[in-house]
Amino acid sequence: MSQLVEKGEKLKRAKTTLGIASTRGKNEALALVAKSIKDSQENILNANMKDIENARNSGMKEGLVDRLLLNQARINGIIEGIETVIKLPDPIWKSDSVWTLENGLTISKMSVPLGVMGIIYESRPNVTVDAFALALKSGNGILLRGSSTAIYSNIALVEAIKKGLRESDITEDCIQFIDDTDRGLVLEMLKANEYLDLIIPRGGGDLINFVVKNATVPTLQTGEGNCHIFIDESANLDDGVKIVINAKTQRVGVCNACETLLVHEKVKESFLPLIYDALKDKVELRADDDTRRIIPAKVATDEDYATEFLDFILAIKVVKDVDEAIEHISKYGTMHSESIITENLNNALKFQRQVDAATVYVNASTRFTDGAEFGFGAEMGISTQKTHARGPVGLEQLVTHKYLVMGQGQVRK
Amino acid sequence: MSQLVEKGEKLKRAKTTLGIASTRGKNEALALVAKSIKDSQENILNANMKDIENARNSGMKEGLVDRLLLNQARINGIIEGIETVIKLPDPIWKSDSVWTLENGLTISKMSVPLGVMGIIYESRPNVTVDAFALALKSGNGILLRGSSTAIYSNIALVEAIKKGLRESDITEDCIQFIDDTDRGLVLEMLKANEYLDLIIPRGGGDLINFVVKNATVPTLQTGEGNCHIFIDESANLDDGVKIVINAKTQRVGVCNACETLLVHEKVKESFLPLIYDALKDKVELRADDDTRRIIPAKVATDEDYATEFLDFILAIKVVKDVDEAIEHISKYGTMHSESIITENLNNALKFQRQVDAATVYVNASTRFTDGAEFGFGAEMGISTQKTHARGPVGLEQLVTHKYLVMGQGQVRK
Repeated sequence: MSQLVEKGEKLKRAKTTLGIASTRGKNEALALVAKSIKDSQENILNANMKDIENARNSGMKEGLVDRLLLNQARINGIIEGIETVIKLPDPIWKSDSVWTLENGLTISKMSVPLGVMGIIYESRPNVTVDAFALALKSGNGILLRGSSTAIYSNIALVEAIKKGLRESDITEDCIQFIDDTDRGLVLEMLKANEYLDLIIPRGGGDLINFVVKNATVPTLQTGEGNCHIFIDESANLDDGVKIVINAKTQRVGVCNACETLLVHEKVKESFLPLIYDALKDKVELRADDDTRRIIPAKVATDEDYATEFLDFILAIKVVKDVDEAIEHISKYGTMHSESIITENLNNALKFQRQVDAATVYVNASTRFTDGAEFGFGAEMGISTQKTHARGPVGLEQLVTHKYLVMGQGQVRK
Repeated sequence: MSQLVEKGEKLKRAKTTLGIASTRGKNEALALVAKSIKDSQENILNANMKDIENARNSGMKEGLVDRLLLNQARINGIIEGIETVIKLPDPIWKSDSVWTLENGLTISKMSVPLGVMGIIYESRPNVTVDAFALALKSGNGILLRGSSTAIYSNIALVEAIKKGLRESDITEDCIQFIDDTDRGLVLEMLKANEYLDLIIPRGGGDLINFVVKNATVPTLQTGEGNCHIFIDESANLDDGVKIVINAKTQRVGVCNACETLLVHEKVKESFLPLIYDALKDKVELRADDDTRRIIPAKVATDEDYATEFLDFILAIKVVKDVDEAIEHISKYGTMHSESIITENLNNALKFQRQVDAATVYVNASTRFTDGAEFGFGAEMGISTQKTHARGPVGLEQLVTHKYLVMGQGQVRK
């Protein structure tokens, strides 16, 4: 029997009781898990040191080593994350839709857990705890498959979580971690429709594509963001500069950062020098010929416009109007976050109606697409697909529903 | 270039304008399509006669030939279906969630079309029109792939639809029909993530499994219903008999029909003879030993309990309590529709909480799981999966949403 079947069967049994656990029971369990992680931090940090050492020995770049690293402050961050989830409202067994039919049947659409979620993720060990906390609060079991580079850290974190759960009323079986780094198990997981109700890949484009291509379990694609800002003819140019600086440079390695700037040709002479002055010391500009006649920049290739740089690089293109901007976004965008800077009401409405993306902004930075910023408290990622959930995925998106129908002997005519 | 690419590109262009079409424009187009189908009925019926002839020549059973058959009355039914969709509220560009953040950003969660839906379906030609009407009203393009047995009927129906659309403000490209019955095109369709946002298979278990196993496009599983009725110890037995008769025999070939009857052991002596008398002339009973000691019945195998008969056959099992009933349903059910007949409040609540199905009934027939019965007006099918939509899939389930964020220059801190 493979590890997956054994753990899948445990989750199958666990989800029945987890799905009807009380809010209080779930919150107490989360608090006990937070305490257990605090108590186990020496053990966790030692395990993490092993991962870090192995990573450095294998020649991993320091930027990536940093993603792997845990320290006192980061463990505190993980614990604060659990505390945030404790404070969030329970998303389960709620209804905003109850109605009565003419025949007297009353139908209530109630939110219920999905069942069991599979998470396949890369390096950052904090995902282990963040994902678990959201799963538990939403009444879902969780099957985790982390990166082999973080294996010791993840095992130590899962041990601490299970230790906390053992003191609670929630079964420790509701979290299962695949501790075998064999890639074959990932493929098995992607096809485990009997055990998993949803798989969320968290990582780069390659991981996401691999999952989408091979999974028969429903998936939630998260994280790829080739986001644009369009400076319209009527834009407040000072706001435009401020917003582009923020969206490009506040944090470059994130999916809601701006990757391409589109500029209306009527403001190219006035706007481009401003943005050049603001970014030239920090950001590499790659632009079309129109732009390069006004400010210094490298030549932008078609591939540049299609690339999520996640770096201090910005592609620039001059467009003749809002329609050309929308067309460019439709061709190159990843349906994540798009923004128009304009004082023209009609263009703002047109952009919002016609741009097909999870979040469409008027006069604001794309960086706000985030569960915490949106007020969801915490997030499992940002969905760039259209089915099930789109945009930031918080507790409310980790549920399904069932219809309860109360009758007094009704039969269909 | 394959037919799929050519039609996919047409849909890609069509969906942009379709997604922002006015309610009035969509309703006028639907009315013109209804008129065109009426005007073309001779042509449609002639085409259908060809299909029927081919079917009979190939030795198709009369029951299946009937599913294929169109006649005056059925065409009137198709037209009435369009009229129902015209009357339904437009599900697009609505919001029940608008909020303002502390920084002044206002976020509106707006419903928008999914984009393009692919429908893969068997025999019944009315699906061609029903699915198109729901797609158009919800602003979605549609790519249809019907059964080869209905090819002439479907081509005639699609022609009539396109003729109606040409007189409207909606582009006829919003409906595309794959008129090549090559199976390879189905596989290509299942992986056409560039063109399709959702695939809905409508047909038997084999078709659904094939689609789920091979699709990389998100799918919506519909239609498989192994539904149970549990007669609890405290049940009103007269209601129980009435409900079982209705759920088993009112229409046997449908997914919300009852396939297995579970009876609490404390009422087996009183209830089973009643149900035997009620069903014996029409329905073949297959039961466990406990039941067979009380009423005549064939022996039920494990496979019987797992089978969606879609026929005048009912499996029966005596269980010792509501917990065993829930366990049986969890093992054999397809998460479609489940009903408990009880006067005991605690058991009713327990059944509703713990049975994992799209619709859970107390004291009512499972036959009510239906878009029209629920008040959704019309349905694309009944989803038995948990992601995106669960239960009857009406217009409201054929949408996604986007977040619109209105700012005045906000940047993230």
